[in-house]
Amino acid sequence: MRDPAENAQLALLLEVAGTPKPGNVDRRREYDDLRFEHFMAGAVGALGGLRQAAAGESIGSAFEKAVEGMSAQSGGNTQFGALLVLVPLVRAATANRLTPTGVSEVVKGTTVEDTCAFYRSFEHVDVAVDAPPEDIDALDVRRGSEAIGTLRKRALTMSDVMDLSADRDGIAAEWMSGFERSFGAAEWLLDGDGPLSGRTSRVFLRLLADRPDTFVATRNGGAVAEEATRRARAVLDGEEGADALAEEFIDRDINPGTTADITAGALFIALECGLEV
Amino acid sequence: MRDPAENAQLALLLEVAGTPKPGNVDRRREYDDLRFEHFMAGAVGALGGLRQAAAGESIGSAFEKAVEGMSAQSGGNTQFGALLVLVPLVRAATANRLTPTGVSEVVKGTTVEDTCAFYRSFEHVDVAVDAPPEDIDALDVRRGSEAIGTLRKRALTMSDVMDLSADRDGIAAEWMSGFERSFGAAEWLLDGDGPLSGRTSRVFLRLLADRPDTFVATRNGGAVAEEATRRARAVLDGEEGADALAEEFIDRDINPGTTADITAGALFIALECGLEV
Repeated sequence: MRDPAENAQLALLLEVAGTPKPGNVDRRREYDDLRFEHFMAGAVGALGGLRQAAAGESIGSAFEKAVEGMSAQSGGNTQFGALLVLVPLVRAATANRLTPTGVSEVVKGTTVEDTCAFYRSFEHVDVAVDAPPEDIDALDVRRGSEAIGTLRKRALTMSDVMDLSADRDGIAAEWMSGFERSFGAAEWLLDGDGPLSGRTSRVFLRLLADRPDTFVATRNGGAVAEEATRRARAVLDGEEGADALAEEFIDRDINPGTTADITAGALFIALECGLEV
Repeated sequence: MRDPAENAQLALLLEVAGTPKPGNVDRRREYDDLRFEHFMAGAVGALGGLRQAAAGESIGSAFEKAVEGMSAQSGGNTQFGALLVLVPLVRAATANRLTPTGVSEVVKGTTVEDTCAFYRSFEHVDVAVDAPPEDIDALDVRRGSEAIGTLRKRALTMSDVMDLSADRDGIAAEWMSGFERSFGAAEWLLDGDGPLSGRTSRVFLRLLADRPDTFVATRNGGAVAEEATRRARAVLDGEEGADALAEEFIDRDINPGTTADITAGALFIALECGLEV
């Protein structure tokens, strides 16, 4: 059977294959410069870092290696956020502690060296992130390894850094909440039936309907993020068609990437809990 | 960058993502009991065996391990044939001999132990194969490990066994011809442009138009195999639509699986030769 690193790789593949996922690359839709094939190559390349996480290497360097491998394709950032969700989950699963408490302990166990590797990982690929508030400008992740002096001086762990962003970044919020949305959505996957492509689509829509996507907020603004959530709810309520919404969001470049990343986390948890493929 | 085992895993993923591929699972079509998600899980599970091939373990046991891993999903046989194409190619690539001559030497170097492992691999998954001619009934692969006594007594290598089937099995024919169709189709991939999904589709259609698919001949009969080739040629000549043909072949359960397997081999060779993803 698959080990946790393999289940994480499969989660990346099942996530992009979930269709329709309005605004995201799926089996039927892609962007001219960010295509389905780039996600396949990203998942192949990420495995080495996921294996490091499973083998007990430090979270930061496992993440950096996963991102470096993921980036060995020409589409740019395919799964940076998904890997940031998956790496601590893989570590928790390997320790037989795949629970909100178990993964919170992984988060609490991070060190300043993990943070340095996390910042370095931004140098492998172009990630759309918000400018931080002015008072923590020195910690802007876009500084990459230039921020390392500050990180060390302030002895910031990854947990500390995620805590600073948890109110405006959906993945940081997962880190600080015991991955509560990922665990919740995993239940939805396990409770569903039928082909996984459709179940994944529905879980993505439920997550998006539940809370505005912070990646959309960063790239398209808060009003559009609110709209995306409202429209996802309308699909679930049968007032809009999922396929039409998917076409529209791709045209408008509204890409709820954080919701997709949490969907990947949910797929991983569900696979570890026996989701049949 | 990706090593040969990783490129082989990526080739499996890019093959199934090639769309449209009339009669095969692709991004837009699948069978009720053989779905896109099963191919994702098959590619994840196959990597361990592909790594064994790259590490220099015997071809037969690397193949058996790849098939065993591929089978850890509920769709049944997704990539048995593709792995039979890929394993010797991976070995040749690892030895820096990814040429028709180089892979023919891998084939010639197989032993009776490889054949025993090859026969055992049929016990991991249900593979559609023809009954062999009566005079070699004792070598029917469907006997699995029960054939091993005969294999040892007759000291048959995998090269010997493939030679016996090369006139009625497209993959055995590849083994005995230095993988000439795989190498030829790799050139088409490298010469093409645009998204890989469409290039892969076109290469699949060219291979099918070029020669009847032996998997279709086994499952649907020779006349249907001839028809599939004629219809693929009509698509290339602009006389038929590829999407309509894909719908029709799925409805009629005409699945040119051997052509897909050779397409996977071509993708692997092209990736090793620098095909950009």
